[in-house]
Amino acid sequence: MITVNLNEKLALFSDHWNPRIVGELNGQHLKLVKFLGAFTWHQHASEDELFLVLHGRFRMEFRDHSVWVDEGEFLIVPRGVEHRPVADTEVQVLLFEPATTLNTGDAGGPLTRVALERL
Amino acid sequence: MITVNLNEKLALFSDHWNPRIVGELNGQHLKLVKFLGAFTWHQHASEDELFLVLHGRFRMEFRDHSVWVDEGEFLIVPRGVEHRPVADTEVQVLLFEPATTLNTGDAGGPLTRVALERL
Repeated sequence: MITVNLNEKLALFSDHWNPRIVGELNGQHLKLVKFLGAFTWHQHASEDELFLVLHGRFRMEFRDHSVWVDEGEFLIVPRGVEHRPVADTEVQVLLFEPATTLNTGDAGGPLTRVALERL
Repeated sequence: MITVNLNEKLALFSDHWNPRIVGELNGQHLKLVKFLGAFTWHQHASEDELFLVLHGRFRMEFRDHSVWVDEGEFLIVPRGVEHRPVADTEVQVLLFEPATTLNTGDAGGPLTRVALERL
């Protein structure tokens, strides 16, 4: 049983839209990810997703509105809701979601990441 | 869908060992809690627990050793492992655990909290 330091883990990678697994419990994964730019529109049929901002801020776009998520804030996107994160400047985010969750959900495409690295 | 600001929620209460629910997803709860002093020895038969330190630090005691958890760090305590958080000074913690989790696990006693407040 060891502690995990979030900043130390964040320092280990610099690419965007490529989540790393840093913890696992109760069938859920804790992931760290860096966003920059606009992601793919997608949804998750059976997984709710939590986004907690550690450094920076980003905008979560929905089809009919958008929400800013600032440092020290989290947003839960319920299953079945189409969404797209957009970051004008780099943002560092902690994700909490079921281990089955694929980053691009139902959309696929070049930003899809499988077999995520564990840090 | 609204964002939750952790510091704003933490400012809403000052008592210790009394977790508040601030988010729910995939059958899991996100809780905020403040620790001060020593808690009850206990375990959870079927729930892993995550402790993420937002402000301060605390020591997680196990029967044969203990681990410090500093600000910006998290610790996952697997199900079935007896533990006791101890805080020499106040620490503010984010918990992530199944909605079924009782704070004192199998131990019960005066620090047990049920029907947690939602902030």
